[in-house]
Amino acid sequence: MLQRTTRLTLVEQIALQMEGLIESGKWEIGMRIPAEPELMAELNVSRNTLREAIRALTHAGLLKTKQGNGTYVCSSSVLGVVLQKRILRSETQQTLEVRHALEREGALLAAQRRTSDEARALLLVLERCEGAVERGDIDGYVTEDIRLHQSVIAASHNDILIELYGHIAETLRDLISSLTRREVGAVYLEVHRQLVEAIVRQDADRAVAAVHHYIAESKAAISGSEREGHEPA
Amino acid sequence: MLQRTTRLTLVEQIALQMEGLIESGKWEIGMRIPAEPELMAELNVSRNTLREAIRALTHAGLLKTKQGNGTYVCSSSVLGVVLQKRILRSETQQTLEVRHALEREGALLAAQRRTSDEARALLLVLERCEGAVERGDIDGYVTEDIRLHQSVIAASHNDILIELYGHIAETLRDLISSLTRREVGAVYLEVHRQLVEAIVRQDADRAVAAVHHYIAESKAAISGSEREGHEPA
Repeated sequence: MLQRTTRLTLVEQIALQMEGLIESGKWEIGMRIPAEPELMAELNVSRNTLREAIRALTHAGLLKTKQGNGTYVCSSSVLGVVLQKRILRSETQQTLEVRHALEREGALLAAQRRTSDEARALLLVLERCEGAVERGDIDGYVTEDIRLHQSVIAASHNDILIELYGHIAETLRDLISSLTRREVGAVYLEVHRQLVEAIVRQDADRAVAAVHHYIAESKAAISGSEREGHEPA
Repeated sequence: MLQRTTRLTLVEQIALQMEGLIESGKWEIGMRIPAEPELMAELNVSRNTLREAIRALTHAGLLKTKQGNGTYVCSSSVLGVVLQKRILRSETQQTLEVRHALEREGALLAAQRRTSDEARALLLVLERCEGAVERGDIDGYVTEDIRLHQSVIAASHNDILIELYGHIAETLRDLISSLTRREVGAVYLEVHRQLVEAIVRQDADRAVAAVHHYIAESKAAISGSEREGHEPA
């Protein structure tokens, strides 16, 4: 049930309530939001107020209106939208440096704080990465690889890191896919195994060394391909 | 001169144009934006369209309307607004871990990439920190300390790090002020000198060690005061 609150302008209140529904997942990505008459009745607001609130969220990148076909949820967080735009317009080397910053701290804290459930989950995702490589399933590998890095960050138990990284992770798909296709997969698998095993053994130094290793490999692969004139996607 | 573009809705176009004026600094923080009639004429839009665009930017946290007193610029970037909210509602230990991630990478890259101008500027800010401590000027010290950390990140030449950190820096004021007042200032000064000298000598290992040292000091000071029941601001 939606409720009016006080002090903000009415448009602001309505926009914040809808943002809350989106961030909490009640309105999921891809979902069409209820039709205008339904929302107007539930919120007890005029059509103009509702439309202005929807425009504010559209501008923020959370909603998208398809002409004659309703309004859809297209992102779950303002932070995600903004961060993704920033990363997509940056150079790959710079993105790898930011990954190094976040993934290194994530691995360090994960080694100190991972629960036994998290340790088991990490080993499971690692096996799925290895299975995908054995099958030659590159897309499957990329999906599991992103999941592996997210699982490491999750085990850090640092909410800001988890949130920052969660928004960045999907923008990594092209980068990881491009690196994997250049057959650095085998080295990555070995270093990822070192990373996971270090976190499982709660060995922070080795976990951090593994992150350093795969980022260095990625940087070398990228700058190698740039010298050959193949700018990665 | 403001210009209309195509394809987006008119409200979206106007909001994006105003966002551009704000992000580029043409409309500075604290400035009152031109009055409605002036903007309506310049953009060739109706009052309703203009107001909806202003509401979208108000919701995004870039503009603030004071009743009967015009509309003011209150932040220069959507990313800044969102990140600051996230940090302000997080625990201090978590914020220090994110600082460690970003400042460590910043110091590492700064040691590799700083120009001689940047090296000179870092030494100058360090002297200002020391001068403020000698005068017992805590507020002055906090300002210079934040500037020192921003200068290190700037010397990393990584635009994503610089932007992320720029938005976080101002939220650090309370934290650094609270730490300084607890007389950890002398240790900090010494470690900050080690950091700057390492970057000047292009010694990445020592620069990283200095960041690790002052973050560890801060964590210890915070958890010490929490044990005494003095939760820092």
